[in-house]
Amino acid sequence: MNGAQSLIRTLVDAGVDVCFANPGTSEMHFVAALDSVPEMRGVLGLFEGVVTGAADGYARIAGKPAATLLHLGPGLGNGLANLHNARRAHTPVVNVVGDHATHHKKYDAPLESDILAVAGSLQGWVRESHSTADVGADAAAAVAASMDPPGRVATLILPADVSWGDGGTAVAPIPPRKPHAVAPGKVQAVAEVLRSGEPVAVLIGGAACREAGLRAVSRITAATGAKAFIETFPARLERGAGLPTIERLGYLAEQATYQLSGIKHLIVAGTKSPVSFFAYPGKPSDLVPEGAQVHTLAELDHDVVGALEALADEVAAGVEPVLQEARRPELPSGPLTAQNWVEVIGALLPENAIISDETNTSGVLLPNATAGAPRHDVLTLTGGAIGQGLPVATGAAVAAPDRPVIALQADGSALYTISALWTHARENLDVTTVILNNSAYAILRMELQRVGAESSGPKANALLDLSKPDMDFAKIAEGMGVPATRATTAEELAEQFRAAQAEPGPHLIDAVVPPLL
Amino acid sequence: MNGAQSLIRTLVDAGVDVCFANPGTSEMHFVAALDSVPEMRGVLGLFEGVVTGAADGYARIAGKPAATLLHLGPGLGNGLANLHNARRAHTPVVNVVGDHATHHKKYDAPLESDILAVAGSLQGWVRESHSTADVGADAAAAVAASMDPPGRVATLILPADVSWGDGGTAVAPIPPRKPHAVAPGKVQAVAEVLRSGEPVAVLIGGAACREAGLRAVSRITAATGAKAFIETFPARLERGAGLPTIERLGYLAEQATYQLSGIKHLIVAGTKSPVSFFAYPGKPSDLVPEGAQVHTLAELDHDVVGALEALADEVAAGVEPVLQEARRPELPSGPLTAQNWVEVIGALLPENAIISDETNTSGVLLPNATAGAPRHDVLTLTGGAIGQGLPVATGAAVAAPDRPVIALQADGSALYTISALWTHARENLDVTTVILNNSAYAILRMELQRVGAESSGPKANALLDLSKPDMDFAKIAEGMGVPATRATTAEELAEQFRAAQAEPGPHLIDAVVPPLL
Repeated sequence: MNGAQSLIRTLVDAGVDVCFANPGTSEMHFVAALDSVPEMRGVLGLFEGVVTGAADGYARIAGKPAATLLHLGPGLGNGLANLHNARRAHTPVVNVVGDHATHHKKYDAPLESDILAVAGSLQGWVRESHSTADVGADAAAAVAASMDPPGRVATLILPADVSWGDGGTAVAPIPPRKPHAVAPGKVQAVAEVLRSGEPVAVLIGGAACREAGLRAVSRITAATGAKAFIETFPARLERGAGLPTIERLGYLAEQATYQLSGIKHLIVAGTKSPVSFFAYPGKPSDLVPEGAQVHTLAELDHDVVGALEALADEVAAGVEPVLQEARRPELPSGPLTAQNWVEVIGALLPENAIISDETNTSGVLLPNATAGAPRHDVLTLTGGAIGQGLPVATGAAVAAPDRPVIALQADGSALYTISALWTHARENLDVTTVILNNSAYAILRMELQRVGAESSGPKANALLDLSKPDMDFAKIAEGMGVPATRATTAEELAEQFRAAQAEPGPHLIDAVVPPLL
Repeated sequence: MNGAQSLIRTLVDAGVDVCFANPGTSEMHFVAALDSVPEMRGVLGLFEGVVTGAADGYARIAGKPAATLLHLGPGLGNGLANLHNARRAHTPVVNVVGDHATHHKKYDAPLESDILAVAGSLQGWVRESHSTADVGADAAAAVAASMDPPGRVATLILPADVSWGDGGTAVAPIPPRKPHAVAPGKVQAVAEVLRSGEPVAVLIGGAACREAGLRAVSRITAATGAKAFIETFPARLERGAGLPTIERLGYLAEQATYQLSGIKHLIVAGTKSPVSFFAYPGKPSDLVPEGAQVHTLAELDHDVVGALEALADEVAAGVEPVLQEARRPELPSGPLTAQNWVEVIGALLPENAIISDETNTSGVLLPNATAGAPRHDVLTLTGGAIGQGLPVATGAAVAAPDRPVIALQADGSALYTISALWTHARENLDVTTVILNNSAYAILRMELQRVGAESSGPKANALLDLSKPDMDFAKIAEGMGVPATRATTAEELAEQFRAAQAEPGPHLIDAVVPPLL
């Protein structure tokens, strides 16, 4: 078998059987090899940001990595923003980046570039395959590295001649390392903090944001009176009726400061001590209240859920978690607002849904409206690099073909990776996209004030305005093969959302919503 | 003045008065400062690949850099592919990349990433401004570095607090360095080669692809019988009636090998010795015929035109260049084909046009059809990173508002940076986009065969197919505010192209063309 065949065979044997691809000439042997390994599914994206974001969304739901196939340095560059988000989500991703044949690199042909430098910026795992005989072992190492707790982006650079050369062998999977157990005594030490009588908050992230972790935290808060918060942008948050509802820490430093005010101890598990998303003149970056002490129960690569369960058993033996009752908002009426569109979603969210949430300012009121909806997963913008929502929805839908995926997507952010819609159509994915079309970079209007910029004259405001011309996302979606409608009232949104849910496959609703501010 | 104001003032004083921008929170003081320096024009792009490609197109026509404004590492990543093309075009570009405040970086906030590594991969000029007092000098240095022959990408990283801090000063421009003169005796030595009686070809690139260089080369070939070729992907090529017509070296190694067959000497000026775009199993990467000698008349940072003119005076004193006669194809009729669509363009190309050519396979026959059309500029895909054509057209139109811009754009490539159309509408740019919609990555179908891939089964072919679903670019364009039509016959294309030319402002024609192969 050639190098490409050994690569794909090794990936499949390690459980990596989906490849989101945007190939070029240097990847043609990989493409040809897909037909010789029937277990590998190739999913075409028309832009690398779609490919990498889809791989992120896929792994958040599947619990194992997908591969990507990217064309040299520029292809990796186009995929970099969503790989940044994957890095921040600790998502396992296996990038395969094609490169020029090894003997061709010295000629500095037009597409030659410093792939190692760009891949290295992701601070994950990077290796170049130097010979066909090595490809299988390199691929097995890449998968294991991607799954090494807490998960990371692994990038394998595959020169064309290494791919087309003969002498490849499939290599057996390397079992991924288990998360570390927390140090002996750590749970007891943190339990002492909870018993101290002083105000305590617990901040959780990563794996703790799913059922087992949430139940453990709810037991802890019920027994001790501590507050609990979820990190601002969890990779995957389970929520809805029957699960504990735990508030997320706010995006705005002002919100988070308010939420944490008065605490003397912050117990952190599966995330980092909270910091401001951006710096602002004269405001602190560290969001831990002055004088409060931070206690790390479990680092990201620890068995976070196990630690929380042990802590719950220590301080809350026999105490049950507090579970969210089923409740939905009433269906609202009238012109769409930042308030009522979330009520429509809360009222109509289907069972077992996956929400890809990149609503930015428009979604501020979403968590409350959906808290008592049927149980669902929420995938958020972990790294702040906008243009993630539609690709993540793509990958989630590939990972869970039996679950409805709801992409709630701000208009400005949607444009970065809009061709994800074509892949929704191509693969007939059950994704309902709702564009929150407020014709503005509304979050930047807010930020322009928050950073204390002296003026906001007409030229500054023009750079934050998307209304000249207004975009018609229904037309854009139809142009890419996705059936689409436009909603300007709550009734229209409800009717169109119901219709989209009633018919499997992709739909888009262009919801014209005024800016929150 | 604050750092942002000193930056913009310094840029404007150095002649950099257009900024293509896709800002975020860390760039809000730059955005606010635009209103305090009225000479700076801010042009919003909805994706960073549009911003960087526009800066490339702008500078190719304006002969001076534009600035870009990009949001931290992910924004630079999104812009990287078109910066790669700019690097290969030796286009001067001044990137301003916002970063977290210096005191915020240690907190590793979600958008923190290794900007230096990504910027460094462009192998141009990179500097981080460390204090507000330095910003003016850093900006002046960035502009000078970008213009240093033959031109490069300069990236200035601007932390938010350096931008918002007080104590900035505008700094006077640094005069850019002039190109080196070629070494004494070099012209005479090359003249001897031309007089040797052996078969010679001259290969030119860079600045030599404009009128003065073309005339000099035409005199040389007329006097000596040498062949002449233009590099495969020139950044800016002047051509049409009244100028010498010089053939471009083919993209396919087979073509280039045929063009250069039989020569004993290759004289190179303003470009590099030719190499294959990609490597292919068993085929050479170096396109210089075996046994032929390469003579470099002028490196890229030399006075290439001066050297060619001196060489022409040496070997072709009194000889006039051979100028292209005006001639246009007849207007064709019938269903669109790869043959007849180029005849429509050749027949109807307006005076003084700028063509942004990313037609890939569909445009193989374009050069002949437009050779005798009115004089025009052609901007090509210099670095092979697709998704350049619509952004380059954007920048060219901003640089030359009095010239019609024609974006001839392959369908697959268009999707990478499709939101450039919104900027065409926003700025009311006189850009007529013709999408060559063949519903395939047709070039990859060809490459799949050329690389000698063993199979091309259904899964491989599916990854090169854009027909399920077919895209409707007219709807996509209308969704972004650009009036659009669809053409399936030569008559429709002619009628729609004429109508687009008759009305200033952006238009798009979705031309449904069968694949060439």
